[in-house]
Amino acid sequence: MDTESRGEMTISQMDKFFNPTSVAVAGASRSVEKLGNVCIANMQRSGYRGDIFPIHPQGGEIMGLSAYASLRDLPKQVDLAVAVIPRQGVLGLIDQCIEAGIRQVIVTAAGFADDGPQGARLQQELQEVVRASQMRVMGPNSVGTISTESGFVTSLMSLDPIEDGGISIVAQTGLFCGGYGRRFGSSGLPGIAKIASLGNKCDVDELDALEYLAADPKTEVIAFYTEGMGRARDFLELASRLSAEKPIVVLKGGSTRKGGRAASTHTGSMSGTSEIYAGAFRQAGIIQVSCIDDLLGCAKALSYCQAPRGNRVGVVSITGAGCVLAADACQLAGLRMPGLGGETLNRALGGLPDWATFSNPVDLWPAAVMGSVETAYDSVLGAVIQQEDIDMLMVIFTLVPESEFDIADVMVRAMRLSGDKPLLGCILGANDADMRRWSASLERLKIPVYSSIDRTVAAADALASYSRRLEKVHGGTLKGQWPAGGAPLP
Amino acid sequence: MDTESRGEMTISQMDKFFNPTSVAVAGASRSVEKLGNVCIANMQRSGYRGDIFPIHPQGGEIMGLSAYASLRDLPKQVDLAVAVIPRQGVLGLIDQCIEAGIRQVIVTAAGFADDGPQGARLQQELQEVVRASQMRVMGPNSVGTISTESGFVTSLMSLDPIEDGGISIVAQTGLFCGGYGRRFGSSGLPGIAKIASLGNKCDVDELDALEYLAADPKTEVIAFYTEGMGRARDFLELASRLSAEKPIVVLKGGSTRKGGRAASTHTGSMSGTSEIYAGAFRQAGIIQVSCIDDLLGCAKALSYCQAPRGNRVGVVSITGAGCVLAADACQLAGLRMPGLGGETLNRALGGLPDWATFSNPVDLWPAAVMGSVETAYDSVLGAVIQQEDIDMLMVIFTLVPESEFDIADVMVRAMRLSGDKPLLGCILGANDADMRRWSASLERLKIPVYSSIDRTVAAADALASYSRRLEKVHGGTLKGQWPAGGAPLP
Repeated sequence: MDTESRGEMTISQMDKFFNPTSVAVAGASRSVEKLGNVCIANMQRSGYRGDIFPIHPQGGEIMGLSAYASLRDLPKQVDLAVAVIPRQGVLGLIDQCIEAGIRQVIVTAAGFADDGPQGARLQQELQEVVRASQMRVMGPNSVGTISTESGFVTSLMSLDPIEDGGISIVAQTGLFCGGYGRRFGSSGLPGIAKIASLGNKCDVDELDALEYLAADPKTEVIAFYTEGMGRARDFLELASRLSAEKPIVVLKGGSTRKGGRAASTHTGSMSGTSEIYAGAFRQAGIIQVSCIDDLLGCAKALSYCQAPRGNRVGVVSITGAGCVLAADACQLAGLRMPGLGGETLNRALGGLPDWATFSNPVDLWPAAVMGSVETAYDSVLGAVIQQEDIDMLMVIFTLVPESEFDIADVMVRAMRLSGDKPLLGCILGANDADMRRWSASLERLKIPVYSSIDRTVAAADALASYSRRLEKVHGGTLKGQWPAGGAPLP
Repeated sequence: MDTESRGEMTISQMDKFFNPTSVAVAGASRSVEKLGNVCIANMQRSGYRGDIFPIHPQGGEIMGLSAYASLRDLPKQVDLAVAVIPRQGVLGLIDQCIEAGIRQVIVTAAGFADDGPQGARLQQELQEVVRASQMRVMGPNSVGTISTESGFVTSLMSLDPIEDGGISIVAQTGLFCGGYGRRFGSSGLPGIAKIASLGNKCDVDELDALEYLAADPKTEVIAFYTEGMGRARDFLELASRLSAEKPIVVLKGGSTRKGGRAASTHTGSMSGTSEIYAGAFRQAGIIQVSCIDDLLGCAKALSYCQAPRGNRVGVVSITGAGCVLAADACQLAGLRMPGLGGETLNRALGGLPDWATFSNPVDLWPAAVMGSVETAYDSVLGAVIQQEDIDMLMVIFTLVPESEFDIADVMVRAMRLSGDKPLLGCILGANDADMRRWSASLERLKIPVYSSIDRTVAAADALASYSRRLEKVHGGTLKGQWPAGGAPLP
């Protein structure tokens, strides 16, 4: 088998983990609250249209579906089996899958490489069986996948249908199929294309996922949480080829000695030196972040915005402290903040009281005191975003005295003048209801919104990194263009 | 006048900025949406019981109150004047205050040291007049104060009554009297004792505020946002004496060249070298943080929790990634994570499936898969918190499969065994409504809650810093004791 057809096989096999036409759930139960049933209920609730076959020793009916005593008894060959059973039964089930011709399996049980020498041996055994077959296994210690495209959700946590979007997440943790699965699409979190929980990675790993998601038309940005990669070199090589096609963001857990030790009991990963990973990620054009909020926040910006032409940021803030802290954070991140030119000043002056000082970052507070905030926003945002050497604009909002104009209107007017330069929003103050309302109204416009300055600057930095990657790989040819999607002007 | 009586004068004069028995508002208007009126409406809404005297050239009635044409016409001597007027009128108003014997004034107008050489000259003039008088001036470029004790609120933003708490904030920005004023007490933000917006600090500065708040019985923790201090040496000396009585937290804006330049146009501050400030803060026992979220988050932990005996953290997480990322963050912060002893393991084992590995951080996911989460939480939290060399416990929650037990109950049971060791909560997943509900139920128990691991670790680090300060100043005598308050066991 040559490399190309192997690659195609990987992609079509990987697709069965996300968009299978039929699935068997081993571990379905008569009690509705058991994990196997949660998994089935998730698929039913999120509108999965494929066949679901519960497996239960006594057969009968489970959750309105015909259950089968074993994989051997299924009425047709299924694309995928999800094994929601204890680790003791896993090897037996794998044998049954081989017998039944099921070539994709998700194994949820923990207690393998995450659990000392005995567990490691068990995983070794599993791995050998899998390698000798034509089967692909995700896990063990995986909670499976989510695909908003097909409504396929194997999560063991009850989820409501998840809002679709351009971000795909690949993680050695179930967190994104679990708790975060109830947050995506709200709370300023982005919509989702696909999520894979890789767990201990006895077979399917980050490299497979990258290969698949790079070719997936629904995926605009790929976000990884990894605690260490077995095939790091191959992953980096592939990422290096793909990272100027789709942005790749990574959060590396286990970057310290203590964290590394925790990783070995979490997913059995050898985490490796953080400096080596950091250098390798950078070289491959992968954008590394340092916390979950930034992983999701940066992926959101990369999915919503066009690539900027460079790393030159304009900052407009209604609070002076916002100017100061944003300038600090931009400088620490290595982002540039060009001064404002005469033309920009002339353009903006109409909206500003005559005594305002005016530089980048722009403090709009004087305008607020003069009671002309909305006009000032319009003049200043429009002027700054149009300045030739400003590549993107960060706007820091907080409650403005009694002038409760619609900040989305202001941002739309700025977008009209922006020529596709990214706009980022940061909302620092207001009560919960206003925060949610404002945030939602901007996110509908595909303006990424954050509730802290450092998260906003991290997102701007991610955009700048991607721009640098485009520049390096494509030279000037793609400047200001976004390979995958980008927001249409409202 | 000797130092002591000057100190007492400062404190009693400073108290008039927060709890005046009467206040004149210069800049009241016939139009209800003008800033002076917003200021009056805030006081009325938050239950301020002192006399409010609107000043308006035509007198008459404003917002149900008798207005006076000038400060000279007031029926009694007032404690405080709030000048919500443009900068041109400020010096004239100060003269009127002197004439009327008003010894405390808040000046809201910007356009002084924040606004180039001309503004700086104006501030110089103002300062000279003030220094020659017995008057204290807060500002210019201040939005004044909030005191939940007296319901006194000069904010120029419409605020609802703010939940009271033990945190006082002193800032060279109006942000905390503004947008954040609508958030305190919700969204995981702490309740407030007092807030002062110092603005350009022509007179009242951080040193005055520190002196006052250190003696204020309502204030348990003092949080500063500063862009640079004129009397830095005196401030540090005083802080050094007080920082083992009440925790002092500081966010220093303008720590970079760009940020420093922004600070000079924000509040006319010379920000100084960040390294010098950092070293001096550390030496004075001041806890320095790097963003607004941490300023409030660390202050919250210091207000809610007893001081830990040291920096040794136990981490229990329902998500393995939480273990890994918390271990990384703890190690980077210099927090220690002791291994678990035999006694701890024995205590905990009842609640755990036999195959679980078990170290610090403790990954509870295996217990979740076995469907015994609540029992596992009880056994593990109780065992870890009781281990002699664990000083505080960090618990990372996310949505647990279908076991929607009350996490507050679990935490209460752990608190009963904790012997006043701090417990910190981190909630990573769940939908908005659950996040708010869970967070509120823990915060009612005075367990500080965060929605990201790094913010939680920053808070634990702040507790450890305070513990180190207590150790240094008081030796062993205060170990495990909290000078100011602390949460009663429910």
